[in-house]
Amino acid sequence: MINFGIVGLGRIGKVHLSNLQSYCPQAKVIAASPVKPKHKVLLEEYGIVHHCETFEEMMEVPNLDAVVIASPTAYHYDHILQAAKAGKHIFCEKPIDLNYEKVQTVTQTVAAAGVQFMVGFNRRFDPHIQQLKSVIEEGKIGKPRILKITSRDPAPPPIAFIKDSGGLFLDMSIHDFDMARYLVNDEVVQVYAHGSVFGDLPLQQYDDIDTAVITLVFKKGCMVQIDNSRYSTYGYDQRVEVFGENGMTATQNVLDNSVQIANATGHHTARSKHFFIERYAESYRNVLLDFIDTLIHKQPPSISAEDGLAALAIAMAAKKSLKVKTPISIS
Amino acid sequence: MINFGIVGLGRIGKVHLSNLQSYCPQAKVIAASPVKPKHKVLLEEYGIVHHCETFEEMMEVPNLDAVVIASPTAYHYDHILQAAKAGKHIFCEKPIDLNYEKVQTVTQTVAAAGVQFMVGFNRRFDPHIQQLKSVIEEGKIGKPRILKITSRDPAPPPIAFIKDSGGLFLDMSIHDFDMARYLVNDEVVQVYAHGSVFGDLPLQQYDDIDTAVITLVFKKGCMVQIDNSRYSTYGYDQRVEVFGENGMTATQNVLDNSVQIANATGHHTARSKHFFIERYAESYRNVLLDFIDTLIHKQPPSISAEDGLAALAIAMAAKKSLKVKTPISIS
Amino acid sequence: MINFGIVGLGRIGKVHLSNLQSYCPQAKVIAASPVKPKHKVLLEEYGIVHHCETFEEMMEVPNLDAVVIASPTAYHYDHILQAAKAGKHIFCEKPIDLNYEKVQTVTQTVAAAGVQFMVGFNRRFDPHIQQLKSVIEEGKIGKPRILKITSRDPAPPPIAFIKDSGGLFLDMSIHDFDMARYLVNDEVVQVYAHGSVFGDLPLQQYDDIDTAVITLVFKKGCMVQIDNSRYSTYGYDQRVEVFGENGMTATQNVLDNSVQIANATGHHTARSKHFFIERYAESYRNVLLDFIDTLIHKQPPSISAEDGLAALAIAMAAKKSLKVKTPISIS
Amino acid sequence: MINFGIVGLGRIGKVHLSNLQSYCPQAKVIAASPVKPKHKVLLEEYGIVHHCETFEEMMEVPNLDAVVIASPTAYHYDHILQAAKAGKHIFCEKPIDLNYEKVQTVTQTVAAAGVQFMVGFNRRFDPHIQQLKSVIEEGKIGKPRILKITSRDPAPPPIAFIKDSGGLFLDMSIHDFDMARYLVNDEVVQVYAHGSVFGDLPLQQYDDIDTAVITLVFKKGCMVQIDNSRYSTYGYDQRVEVFGENGMTATQNVLDNSVQIANATGHHTARSKHFFIERYAESYRNVLLDFIDTLIHKQPPSISAEDGLAALAIAMAAKKSLKVKTPISIS
Repeated sequence: MINFGIVGLGRIGKVHLSNLQSYCPQAKVIAASPVKPKHKVLLEEYGIVHHCETFEEMMEVPNLDAVVIASPTAYHYDHILQAAKAGKHIFCEKPIDLNYEKVQTVTQTVAAAGVQFMVGFNRRFDPHIQQLKSVIEEGKIGKPRILKITSRDPAPPPIAFIKDSGGLFLDMSIHDFDMARYLVNDEVVQVYAHGSVFGDLPLQQYDDIDTAVITLVFKKGCMVQIDNSRYSTYGYDQRVEVFGENGMTATQNVLDNSVQIANATGHHTARSKHFFIERYAESYRNVLLDFIDTLIHKQPPSISAEDGLAALAIAMAAKKSLKVKTPISIS
Repeated sequence: MINFGIVGLGRIGKVHLSNLQSYCPQAKVIAASPVKPKHKVLLEEYGIVHHCETFEEMMEVPNLDAVVIASPTAYHYDHILQAAKAGKHIFCEKPIDLNYEKVQTVTQTVAAAGVQFMVGFNRRFDPHIQQLKSVIEEGKIGKPRILKITSRDPAPPPIAFIKDSGGLFLDMSIHDFDMARYLVNDEVVQVYAHGSVFGDLPLQQYDDIDTAVITLVFKKGCMVQIDNSRYSTYGYDQRVEVFGENGMTATQNVLDNSVQIANATGHHTARSKHFFIERYAESYRNVLLDFIDTLIHKQPPSISAEDGLAALAIAMAAKKSLKVKTPISIS
Repeated sequence: MINFGIVGLGRIGKVHLSNLQSYCPQAKVIAASPVKPKHKVLLEEYGIVHHCETFEEMMEVPNLDAVVIASPTAYHYDHILQAAKAGKHIFCEKPIDLNYEKVQTVTQTVAAAGVQFMVGFNRRFDPHIQQLKSVIEEGKIGKPRILKITSRDPAPPPIAFIKDSGGLFLDMSIHDFDMARYLVNDEVVQVYAHGSVFGDLPLQQYDDIDTAVITLVFKKGCMVQIDNSRYSTYGYDQRVEVFGENGMTATQNVLDNSVQIANATGHHTARSKHFFIERYAESYRNVLLDFIDTLIHKQPPSISAEDGLAALAIAMAAKKSLKVKTPISIS
Repeated sequence: MINFGIVGLGRIGKVHLSNLQSYCPQAKVIAASPVKPKHKVLLEEYGIVHHCETFEEMMEVPNLDAVVIASPTAYHYDHILQAAKAGKHIFCEKPIDLNYEKVQTVTQTVAAAGVQFMVGFNRRFDPHIQQLKSVIEEGKIGKPRILKITSRDPAPPPIAFIKDSGGLFLDMSIHDFDMARYLVNDEVVQVYAHGSVFGDLPLQQYDDIDTAVITLVFKKGCMVQIDNSRYSTYGYDQRVEVFGENGMTATQNVLDNSVQIANATGHHTARSKHFFIERYAESYRNVLLDFIDTLIHKQPPSISAEDGLAALAIAMAAKKSLKVKTPISIS
């Protein structure tokens, strides 16, 4: 049984908390921080005894084995360093940090501390994506030549969130960058990005965009086209297609339900599942189960700090490409 | 080159005329009857020189090899007998006649006269149905165990047509009965039908219905479920599914176009093709090409008068079953 | 908090147990019977303290509010009567019993005892079916005219199970009969069934079949076509289609995953989910949540003993129809 | 009645010839060039009397109104100039020419000669694309923000053809560039292309590629992602998706048939239609019908020489971008 502490009780923190207590029989959350009065009822329902005011305090809880870091991105770095120092294993939400050097420090620190570190690129653990990965691994489509990822959010987050998020590439596309690395199993050598602001939010003020098209090139030649938008009126649009030497494989959007209606205007099916909480519900469970499993079997986590670093490098190159309007090489 | 005469220049007659002149390089319509003033322009456009007032007159046209009978059902019998007597090959629209004995006479007469006779169960020549048939013939689903046919019209014909049509089973379901025989390749031994009037037309007056569910049982055991309606608000619904020992195969509705729209209310595709003229356009061409081909190669036509007789027997049994509310055996 | 006892720890009993402990925050299983040595570990994992040898013994457990009856069908009747006598609310797996008079006694007994009784027609609580029901209730397709249900199992149960199951109609089709009543919201007045044995199991010996087509007629006229098979090589096939005055609505099969593969032989998607445990996983949770909710709010359960009785009457009529080869009326 | 002469009787020339004679009642091919002995039978079947050895000779045929230019690209320029001089209207296959200045000359020459000129971007007249265009024009998805085009050939043409074709961008992607301009209804201002050779043909020798990803940016901001391959093992892959302010619309691949098979390995449908002759059969008819219609009504053709010039400019920019590895602006 692995004893967890969790930092951050916002939307995604609550998802992890609920999953750990309900779906992970070999783990238990025993501590949380920072606990405010409004969290008390929830934590009691989940049987969490240690309510800590600070992360430091949580590090002192006896028998704590690991932490889930779901605090705002700005705090990740400090929390990781403290946890590593305290010898706790770490599951950290993406992105690790917006600063490349800090993420490098993270990779070195956790390695030196001998603690396990996993970054929460949960989509790798979506059952549909795992099946797609299997199709590729089994050689059913041959070597990947073109990868296409469509990732469009139903609505932008509040401007208050956006301005500290690092922008579209670091907040949103970073999932797609990791997905590309995961599926193609190679390293990106070149990034070209184009984007603009189409919606109502004044993102220009924050040097940000709401719509982008991105081209990645992998070392072994596979080409990637990613398109992102913050304004998909028809729900969360999440599709991946891999075109290879011998065929093509793709995931389709997961709909709210499979009911079809035919009437005088045609045939109709439901919207796509609303957003990441609904669409990737299973992946959030699976990624934690996998982390716990690797801890129990004393194996390295499936997604390392280096993976976080690699995705960040692509996102930063995309940001630079958007600015200088030319492809950027990654060494 | 086969020289054709055509009788009947209504909706379906025009389809056959156009197909013969535009798509059948080895055939030519040289005569038509009964020709009224309003037909003159059309016939001239198609280069038809012999405009006959009567079928008798058309039988005298020199070098006439074959006839397409697209007259109202009530005239089929006379036209067939005259054509057979004159030694012309015959392509006849379904149903051959509403009277079982008359159709028996037809089968004997054409056989005695040594002319080729084909009944226009065009759906057998729909490319999708032909593919379905191939799947079965190639053994891909094993022996058929359950056959399901959905056949729903977008709107009923005028009451004036309906009252002389023989009713839903003889006018509409007869296509499905032939389809069942074609796909299962066996003979029906039992028929059970239930139906009623749901729509606005006072079909009860004519001992007719607008909605039916029918169960057929074949000699070798295959079971068939057919459902029919005259009121499909979402367009012509034509689906066939065959469930067998090793799998299932099915056709899907053919839509007006393949454009998909996603918006705040979901995902949407087009209506099914409107009605039989649009949905089965290719089958009408193919069935004539096949008839012409068998004439040229002096082979028996693919769909015989006996096939017409067998479908009629099922339709009549369905009619009786509806009346006596019990399954009817066919010997 | 509702305290449950559970009888029967076979396949479906374990599903209910797991759902109650993991997904029903307002309920808790505190007792189980009959407990054999092999069940101990499981029950301890779930924190169940009262391990009873018999149902009688379980009725004595203090503070027990309700029971889940997942014992073999032959025991349902006794367990229900004992539970009613002890004043416990009852959730009972389908079918209640194979004998019509006994089920009548059940309806009277639970009413007299003032306990709540719900029969586990779980499919009503499948999210897709609930959406279908909403579509109908909202009038989107108008009055239902034709209902079609395809329900085909991937493989038959062992012959040992089948011979005590009451046969295909009582064991398998009974779900479809309940579904028809639920969706059409009316009572069946006539049943016609045809079936036979296609597979290897010698079901004839037990007066049973493996394939059937069934026609139901409802009082207000809606017609139903059901087809069942025990041998669907392509997985569990569960489809429902409702054709109404103004349109059509249907559920589609739920696939194992949404990955598509295109290669030289065409486009391919996954199998349907394997069987009821996988396909209807959510419905098993939802039906218990609903039962618990009605207990808490002191409302009558959503599916009554009378619903069980009505489905049984249809199944028995189907059995009789198969035997006498004619439609059977239900009064 | 418009009298046509046709130059070039290769694959695409024969398609145009057959369409003109069989599907265009207001047009007639009366002359062909260059006629070789092997063409005689075909031309006689189509009732073409003037068999010309050269294009010059064909220009002398009396009553000739228009020409279809389906000769190899290298001859287009000369044929266009001669036809313009002779006062004949011109339907010319794409690309007009590989040289930008020559195409400019064409635009000026036909304008000065007062003859109508249409370039054969047939895909605009595909029924699915026309429906997609209508969806956009009717404002159903709002202003386009992202356009995605997938265009993958089932197999590369022979190397002998490729080396004179101008390469992937001028031969293949040029259709996609025109499609983008047609659907977005705006002008491209920037082009970025990346590509490489994955297949067996030694295209590097000819400075060509077999796989490409292309990014276009339109003046009003719409972004385009195109992906091309010469090696689609699963058939001709032709998909277009337009993502806009209020929704998304897309075409799907047209399959060989709509038959579905379900078996132990999953659900299967047919391959996509094999290649452009099959997939775009209707568009080849429609584009000619449209050209004839504009001639009859003395209106300018729907696709002008300027459209050909604009697509060529994009193709040349793509070629340059591939070489210099940076986005290229188009003024």
